[in-house]
Amino acid sequence: MTANPGGGNGEADNPHSLVVKFSENDPLITDAGAVLAPLTIAYQTYGVLNAAKSNAILVCHALTGDQHVANVNPLTGKSGWWETMVGPGKPIDTSRYFVICSNVVGGCMGTTGPASTNPATHKPYAVDLPVITIRDMVRAQAKLVDRLGIDQLFCVAGGSMGGMQVLQWAASYPERVFCAMPIAAAARHSSQNIAFHEVGRQAIMADPAWRAGRYLDAGERPGKGLAVARMAAHITYMSEESLHNKFGRRLQGGDAPKFSFDAEFQVESYLHHQGTSFVERFDANSYLYVTRAMDYFDLAADYGGSLAAAFKGSKTRFCLVSFTSDWLFPTAASRSVVHALNAGGASVSFVEIETDKGHDAFLLDVPELLKTSRGFLDSAARARGLRAAGDAA
Amino acid sequence: MTANPGGGNGEADNPHSLVVKFSENDPLITDAGAVLAPLTIAYQTYGVLNAAKSNAILVCHALTGDQHVANVNPLTGKSGWWETMVGPGKPIDTSRYFVICSNVVGGCMGTTGPASTNPATHKPYAVDLPVITIRDMVRAQAKLVDRLGIDQLFCVAGGSMGGMQVLQWAASYPERVFCAMPIAAAARHSSQNIAFHEVGRQAIMADPAWRAGRYLDAGERPGKGLAVARMAAHITYMSEESLHNKFGRRLQGGDAPKFSFDAEFQVESYLHHQGTSFVERFDANSYLYVTRAMDYFDLAADYGGSLAAAFKGSKTRFCLVSFTSDWLFPTAASRSVVHALNAGGASVSFVEIETDKGHDAFLLDVPELLKTSRGFLDSAARARGLRAAGDAA
Repeated sequence: MTANPGGGNGEADNPHSLVVKFSENDPLITDAGAVLAPLTIAYQTYGVLNAAKSNAILVCHALTGDQHVANVNPLTGKSGWWETMVGPGKPIDTSRYFVICSNVVGGCMGTTGPASTNPATHKPYAVDLPVITIRDMVRAQAKLVDRLGIDQLFCVAGGSMGGMQVLQWAASYPERVFCAMPIAAAARHSSQNIAFHEVGRQAIMADPAWRAGRYLDAGERPGKGLAVARMAAHITYMSEESLHNKFGRRLQGGDAPKFSFDAEFQVESYLHHQGTSFVERFDANSYLYVTRAMDYFDLAADYGGSLAAAFKGSKTRFCLVSFTSDWLFPTAASRSVVHALNAGGASVSFVEIETDKGHDAFLLDVPELLKTSRGFLDSAARARGLRAAGDAA
Repeated sequence: MTANPGGGNGEADNPHSLVVKFSENDPLITDAGAVLAPLTIAYQTYGVLNAAKSNAILVCHALTGDQHVANVNPLTGKSGWWETMVGPGKPIDTSRYFVICSNVVGGCMGTTGPASTNPATHKPYAVDLPVITIRDMVRAQAKLVDRLGIDQLFCVAGGSMGGMQVLQWAASYPERVFCAMPIAAAARHSSQNIAFHEVGRQAIMADPAWRAGRYLDAGERPGKGLAVARMAAHITYMSEESLHNKFGRRLQGGDAPKFSFDAEFQVESYLHHQGTSFVERFDANSYLYVTRAMDYFDLAADYGGSLAAAFKGSKTRFCLVSFTSDWLFPTAASRSVVHALNAGGASVSFVEIETDKGHDAFLLDVPELLKTSRGFLDSAARARGLRAAGDAA
């Protein structure tokens, strides 16, 4: 069950998830103008959809995340990636809400992606998959939500790339999103962030095992390149302070340096572990596709350069969260979304949370994040006529 | 003359520079306990040493720099790397001062490094060279300064890793340094910086062409890995603002995206250029050695954990400079050196310069940097009994 992401028998084709297969006649038309069919979406749900179908929360996952929000991940055996936030009694309370999370298009956990078998060739799509955008991911999610018979989502929530999807949902389908929680997100990918992504892609493509993308046909994987990509990215997910607090300059073995190129410092061992464990669970081509989707994200560009226009007249209630030590999606990026929402006349609250945990804070047990999310959702639930946490049964 | 860095006939063995070859009986004893002999140092000088030998300025170069401070680089055909700062009438005025710059030990431009031929084997040292530290680099420079018959340097100056060497000079040989200019430097390499270096090293070592370090014997070079390392590092040399101002999200060709993995954004083309041009001039093993030397740098650790102890009773005059947008060697790192110098009773001035140019600002035409350096050197020159810029001849 492990170590075969993207293989013909792995999660890409046979996910441990619910699956919707759309017919050939129901394709995904992508921003690049491609017609992707048949489209498969793998997803998980938690809780029960009420009779009015008014209590659904769509959780959108980040770059290397997946649909396993609040259950043991079938590939890694670890807890779901957002169990701090999602579960019975948690801010996204599965005893009250019906929670949906689907693997993004371009991913490798069962939704159509480069590791999925292309029915036309019976081989993995690899680099024949069209380039995907955040809007394409959201279009696919909307098809899933349609299929589940849900007109309006009570909430769309997510961090990082998940937050980009939240913003895209609010812009593309304002009437379908009652409230929205984009966390540690931005309305466009910055030049520096594109640069970091390109380093990761170049590391993958420099690995001869990548074989111009056709590595699965050859039964191998560009693990070294993918590990380097992950290590570079991982630094950007933490803050200088958190790295300093966690590792400082401490040596891996004892007090005396060994004067070698092995993992001498603890921070090096940590990075190596991040690299090698990632390779066990993620497909290299998916890394190319999903990073590229983030690079292309520039919500204002789709609205004549005006972010306010993207949200004009929106009735969605927004709650944005940023973290002080997040230098990948800094507070300024969230603040510019807040300004645009204000200019567009939307209802918005915004919290910048003091933490040294960097961008990864959205995934961690940060009490202020949980408290903010709970308060926002409770208030929105009452406005929507749903029972909120403190209400009598 | 190009494209053969580190080859048997390239700059590593036959540099276009002055060279001192120390005898077998005059080795470099390294921090790792190795005996490196014979030691070769390649260096450049500019200006004339006065009769009192009191006007010498040692310039220390950064990670990928070399001794070609103010002349056309023999490998690249480009101007010297610090021509804004060094030359006739420049702040480090070669009509007044005798300027010395030597390639660091572990480098690839003529000083003993992994690409140099090991006389014992007639093959490149490659990874048989002992791991080098900043203090080893400075010990080697001190041997060169001895050989030139100079007791006390008027000034030791440099940025980034050059600034680390300046601090090490002031700590190891306080009586030999009249004044010191560490620019955009730190007294120790941070956890985050070690992490970025490790990503670069892993990218090089992941390249099968690296061949466990023995690539020169096989007549090839791990160019793809080295290019990835350089691209990752280059992002850290700039600021988010400078990348945004220079490239933003502008596309490489026209207004419409091509939806591909080619260099779609201008920032990607720029990074690719940085990567490929670096490979033409730098040796991959040198990159491993010199980054490792920076990682090991922790000046306080050599003085019982007290940075103030490193500078106690120092009579050297210091001028530190940092840049507001430098996140690799941020102002806080310079400030902690200033505090230690104050605690040690040293004479110190400190300027934080407002700029969006990031760490690379020390290499660029930043008027405030030039003005600060000129003022500091003029004042120190008068105190040393040297003619300063404004003085009558």
